[in-house]
Amino acid sequence: MISEVLAAMPSRNSHIRPNDNPDITAERVKATFDTEALSSIIYGGPEKLNRRREIAKYVDDHPEMKDPYPTDFMTREMKLENVARKALLWMEHAELATDVGSQEEGFHFGSLITGIDGHPLAIHLIMAIPALLNNADDEQLDEWLPKAISRQFIATYAQTELGHGTNLSQLETTATYDPKTQEWVLNTPTITATKWWPGNLGKSSNYTVVMAQLITNGKNYGAHPFFIQIRDEKSHRPLPGITLGDIGPKFGMNANDNGFMQFDHFRVKRRAMLMKNAKVLPDGTYVPPKHPKLGYSAMIFVRSAVVGLMSLHMAQAATIGIRYSVVRRQGEITPGAGEVKILDYQTQQYRLFPQLARAFAFRLAGVHALTMYNTIMKQVNSGNTDALADLHALASGLKAVATYQTALGIEQCRFACGGHGYSLASGIPQIYTVAVGGCTYEGENMVLLLQLARYLRKRAAEMTSGKGPAEVPTPLAAYLFQSSPKHSSIGTPVYAPNGEFEGVLQTFEHVSRRLTLTAYAKLQKLEGSGISTEIALNQCAVEWRRASHAFTRVALARIMSGILEQATDQGVREVLEDIVRLYVYYEVGEAAAELLEDGFVDASQVEFARQQVYDALAKIRPNAVSLVDSFDLSDRELNSVLGRRDGNVYENLLKWAQASPLNKDDVLPFHHRYLGKMMTDAKKASKL
Amino acid sequence: MISEVLAAMPSRNSHIRPNDNPDITAERVKATFDTEALSSIIYGGPEKLNRRREIAKYVDDHPEMKDPYPTDFMTREMKLENVARKALLWMEHAELATDVGSQEEGFHFGSLITGIDGHPLAIHLIMAIPALLNNADDEQLDEWLPKAISRQFIATYAQTELGHGTNLSQLETTATYDPKTQEWVLNTPTITATKWWPGNLGKSSNYTVVMAQLITNGKNYGAHPFFIQIRDEKSHRPLPGITLGDIGPKFGMNANDNGFMQFDHFRVKRRAMLMKNAKVLPDGTYVPPKHPKLGYSAMIFVRSAVVGLMSLHMAQAATIGIRYSVVRRQGEITPGAGEVKILDYQTQQYRLFPQLARAFAFRLAGVHALTMYNTIMKQVNSGNTDALADLHALASGLKAVATYQTALGIEQCRFACGGHGYSLASGIPQIYTVAVGGCTYEGENMVLLLQLARYLRKRAAEMTSGKGPAEVPTPLAAYLFQSSPKHSSIGTPVYAPNGEFEGVLQTFEHVSRRLTLTAYAKLQKLEGSGISTEIALNQCAVEWRRASHAFTRVALARIMSGILEQATDQGVREVLEDIVRLYVYYEVGEAAAELLEDGFVDASQVEFARQQVYDALAKIRPNAVSLVDSFDLSDRELNSVLGRRDGNVYENLLKWAQASPLNKDDVLPFHHRYLGKMMTDAKKASKL
Ligand SMILES: Cc1cc2nc3c(=O)[nH]c(=O)nc-3n(C[C@H](O)[C@H](O)[C@H](O)COP(=O)(O)OP(=O)(O)OC[C@H]3O[C@@H](n4cnc5c(N)ncnc54)[C@H](O)[C@@H]3O)c2cc1C
Ligand SMILES: Cc1cc2nc3c(=O)[nH]c(=O)nc-3n(C[C@H](O)[C@H](O)[C@H](O)COP(=O)(O)OP(=O)(O)OC[C@H]3O[C@@H](n4cnc5c(N)ncnc54)[C@H](O)[C@@H]3O)c2cc1C
Repeated sequence: MISEVLAAMPSRNSHIRPNDNPDITAERVKATFDTEALSSIIYGGPEKLNRRREIAKYVDDHPEMKDPYPTDFMTREMKLENVARKALLWMEHAELATDVGSQEEGFHFGSLITGIDGHPLAIHLIMAIPALLNNADDEQLDEWLPKAISRQFIATYAQTELGHGTNLSQLETTATYDPKTQEWVLNTPTITATKWWPGNLGKSSNYTVVMAQLITNGKNYGAHPFFIQIRDEKSHRPLPGITLGDIGPKFGMNANDNGFMQFDHFRVKRRAMLMKNAKVLPDGTYVPPKHPKLGYSAMIFVRSAVVGLMSLHMAQAATIGIRYSVVRRQGEITPGAGEVKILDYQTQQYRLFPQLARAFAFRLAGVHALTMYNTIMKQVNSGNTDALADLHALASGLKAVATYQTALGIEQCRFACGGHGYSLASGIPQIYTVAVGGCTYEGENMVLLLQLARYLRKRAAEMTSGKGPAEVPTPLAAYLFQSSPKHSSIGTPVYAPNGEFEGVLQTFEHVSRRLTLTAYAKLQKLEGSGISTEIALNQCAVEWRRASHAFTRVALARIMSGILEQATDQGVREVLEDIVRLYVYYEVGEAAAELLEDGFVDASQVEFARQQVYDALAKIRPNAVSLVDSFDLSDRELNSVLGRRDGNVYENLLKWAQASPLNKDDVLPFHHRYLGKMMTDAKKASKL
Repeated sequence: MISEVLAAMPSRNSHIRPNDNPDITAERVKATFDTEALSSIIYGGPEKLNRRREIAKYVDDHPEMKDPYPTDFMTREMKLENVARKALLWMEHAELATDVGSQEEGFHFGSLITGIDGHPLAIHLIMAIPALLNNADDEQLDEWLPKAISRQFIATYAQTELGHGTNLSQLETTATYDPKTQEWVLNTPTITATKWWPGNLGKSSNYTVVMAQLITNGKNYGAHPFFIQIRDEKSHRPLPGITLGDIGPKFGMNANDNGFMQFDHFRVKRRAMLMKNAKVLPDGTYVPPKHPKLGYSAMIFVRSAVVGLMSLHMAQAATIGIRYSVVRRQGEITPGAGEVKILDYQTQQYRLFPQLARAFAFRLAGVHALTMYNTIMKQVNSGNTDALADLHALASGLKAVATYQTALGIEQCRFACGGHGYSLASGIPQIYTVAVGGCTYEGENMVLLLQLARYLRKRAAEMTSGKGPAEVPTPLAAYLFQSSPKHSSIGTPVYAPNGEFEGVLQTFEHVSRRLTLTAYAKLQKLEGSGISTEIALNQCAVEWRRASHAFTRVALARIMSGILEQATDQGVREVLEDIVRLYVYYEVGEAAAELLEDGFVDASQVEFARQQVYDALAKIRPNAVSLVDSFDLSDRELNSVLGRRDGNVYENLLKWAQASPLNKDDVLPFHHRYLGKMMTDAKKASKL
């Protein structure tokens, strides 16, 4: 009744429906901004938002694309069967539901159908096809690309081995050229040479890109890509000479059959080597590539994509945490005034809203990095590789920071749901286990931050050698070459575009500059003590990691505050200002030690920043549900009983549990054999 | 060969065996201290250590107590069957293997058999029996306790409901007294009144303590404990009027059948109410309890136990991370010098060693809290409840901080294992999901920190009213009433017991004092602005949380540095100094912002602390494996392919994967139905 009245009220939140939990509707009617306008900004305009929804509707209209029951109740084998079934539907319906020219639409459609825990075409689409594009020559592309695109085979990308992931130079799988037969002999000489981890290698793929040490005429030329068939196209059995298997259950991504592979002197034709860059002639002569640097680019692309993925996961978790927090009532603030929604507790807001802000930041950063990627790759394709270093630095830093902060943030959202957050019904455990994988795959985070540190070390050398910003070819790092003001202007308005936050951004730049120079000074001091640069670098690696983080903070905060330029609607602009304020001042809090250390910021400024955070929390509070609604994630995408749009949590928790397999029987079939026996024996003994 | 030579060398590490991975043996021979001496300190003396090992050997000698294959490959139903089977063995062998008078031995034996993911007697032992002891009167104890102890029934503790966990005052389950029949009518009036979460309630238990609103003569006296039968002793079916079920799969603890329960006007006798404290007479007259405070004590006990449990989980993760890091070689430090053990990277040490230090800290803190509990409970039993507030404050803070830092620390250990950390074979995902539950159960962490803040608020009021340390009955907080020195003495030796670290400890005390007073000042200011104390408290709740954390830091650091007094052996003393040094200076880094903010610590002191951390990392490095060996965790307790004592990781990863259920068939039974069909269809279409 109440909810119907509320639902009928005019509201700027478009997500209100009759029969929703009145506690959630009451939140939505309070929106001070138009959720449609914000959704449009998030998804790149009203047309794209509309297409998103049409695709979602298409999926909703096809119940066969649903899980027959929650996958939480399935074994891994059932999960793989369920997702294979759905992947087939995805492919059969792709042309009907989406513009097949749009990768964005394709991925959205796919992820709506398959969910987030993996699917059999993941690596085929994200890595194998791009690897072919980057490494196959034209003739090879003609042979394989159309088949790959039309899915006449499923391919994966097999690089990592049991013994080596990070250090690719030491991969042990060999491809030895035999000029007599003009064939490669692929071999796995040791256990640690076993290919290990490649997604979809275990069961789904019948072709693969494989990285192997190329040996010809007795010489090893390092790891090179080959493209080979690994299973029979009819029977799907592994080809003779190849051992394949699944690497077993994992923390998450259990609907992906990450696999292992061993070669026993397995022979393939010469042209199995991907020859766009390096080549081997029929007689075994090795012809080196022209642009050795270009191998990087696919990696950078995937890292940028990971940042966008993190934004999705953070938005999912924040949506669940915030919606549940207006449904859950627990404890009183004013005694006798009745239990409050837990979102009214300041500590609860402090747990949740920074994660919401980060979901925005990572969304923007992902888009930013992909745009930069596209721009720079155009330059690269016309021969100008100057900007590659910037791109690599940015993508490495963003990937490392976004994945880690997302992982921590998701757990905060889960904690914020109390006990129910720990149930798989909340959906958050799965979001966590999937997202946290991003800290490791596509470049282990610590390794990435140390790679970024190398870039910073070059800049530091340039800085100390007196170069000015105009003389360095790295626009991303240009600010490092400017001099700092004497003192931070946090708390005093700066007259510049985005004046409110410019002082904070400059402050972050200062820290980045300072930490880079401090780490460099330490390095030089260590070198001065007579140890080698490499050993010295290791001895101040933790300091360099801090510098890399500070550098990434600058990029993220700049990108984040840029969102304000996109908001033309006044209501949206105001709420986004709250979000940006929370984001940047929360980061001031995180960086407070480094800011206070050299006196660039004083205690009153830290206190000012803290107060800005508390004020932003209070201002965001009434809009919180409308903000997460604006991410426009369907119940299907959330896959969470706690995060349901309608807020009808409790009755659905009960239903979910009742459907769980253990509740088929009131008494478990083995009860009397064990616990029953224990009690019966004890009773008998007591009567002796 | 090499390993045999190494294994035969005299070493202070007692964990070396032939056929171990030489890379791990090489670490052990470097030990500069006697691992047996350290193990003795950890486990409370050589006799206890010896008993631990005898019990472990007993379990090892009984292969039927093993899992038939890794539980990672089991469904939940299989997990429950497997652990029920093992629980029966545990009980059957308890008298043979352990001193049944020793809780410590009993729990160790049990945990060796059952593992960490839950078992059917968990709540019976940890909560139900203690609840009976605290709440049943003598006659009731006579009726139930012997049966409980001899396991003639299995009981659980049902408090939390779907709608209420933290706020017990609002539990909705009712127990209404009917004087006509002299019975209680238990009822679940709403969905949210459904009991939800109690461990082992779903399938295993046939009795339970249940908290319900006691209503007699038309008046509600609040939640009280009842003890009732819920399943038939023979058939094990739920009794008529009771609905029972499992709440479904969770993040972790899936070998525990956390359950739900609903009552439909279920009648039990008057004496089902536990009447040690309050009573209801046959005519329905309510007789209130004499000491309303005492209800707390069981909770405090469990919280202290949780801290000890966290130490185990942290030690497990640190052992796995550190051992694997000397087996894993990845990348070079000096080019051309060969791949290094990843533990040689400073960043890797920085990831792992603080977790190792925390495993020590939480072990000591757990023991400390239990000792304090026992002392204070003696006072309480003789009528002196003064110290209860201290005990409650300490246990709340330690539980909240230890569980959260353990969770974060375990993930750092997992990240440190790269890709393989993400596999369930590493064992760390399970350790994480089990440990992180501790952030929520037994008092949600944020709620606990806010409870501790109430205690601090009382102290702040006393401090500002001019009371001196002698006048407050809270020894734990006595330091708050002392005045701070002008400036921190970090970096300058202090002449006091534990002189090296006393300056740091005093610095932590200063921060605790300052943050308590700051939060109090904020509160007073808000109150001054005219809002109620309760609303004001909520508006500075984040500040109070910081004060609670700072207070707990003092306690932890003091307890931790106390370990040095236990080390008589010179080598052990030195390595423990490294650990304590790392622990306290790492905490200085964590608290740096708060230390710098009022100038109590200056930048050079923060830099000093940082350097102490790096120095400690380097000093700990050669002893790292021997340090984790000293926790004396068997391969069984670690349940990790990466953390195996023998370091033979890779071949066993392969074996583990090969045994996983998906590898039964080379081709999954459903392949041709879905992915096979997709490829066949695509080929056909291409030929049209
Ligand atoms: C979910 C998932 C999916 C994956 N999918 C694929 C796939 O499809 N195809 C594929 O080929 N691979 C895949 N992988 C493998 C993945 O790419 C590697 O696990 C990852 O690159 C990390 O490498 P590693 O495992 O060798 O870690 P390691 O390098 O062994 O890292 C272990 C520790 O050593 C440290 N370390 C290593 N080198 C250095 C250094 N130079 N300096 C300082 N510290 C260092 C790291 O920081 C880390 O703490 C996947 C992995 C996961 C978890
Ligand atoms: C693994 C596991 C095992 C369990 N076993 C048992 C068992 O055996 N028996 C049993 O009875 N129960 C059990 N529980 C339930 C457990 O005791 C509760 O989940 C726990 O006490 C938290 O309460 P909650 O779920 O109501 O969280 P909530 O109180 O709903 O917490 C949600 C959020 O609200 C915030 N919040 C709540 N109140 C306040 C406040 N006053 N001020 C500020 N913030 C607040 C919290 O900080 C949190 O962020 C178990 C739970 C788990 C996860």
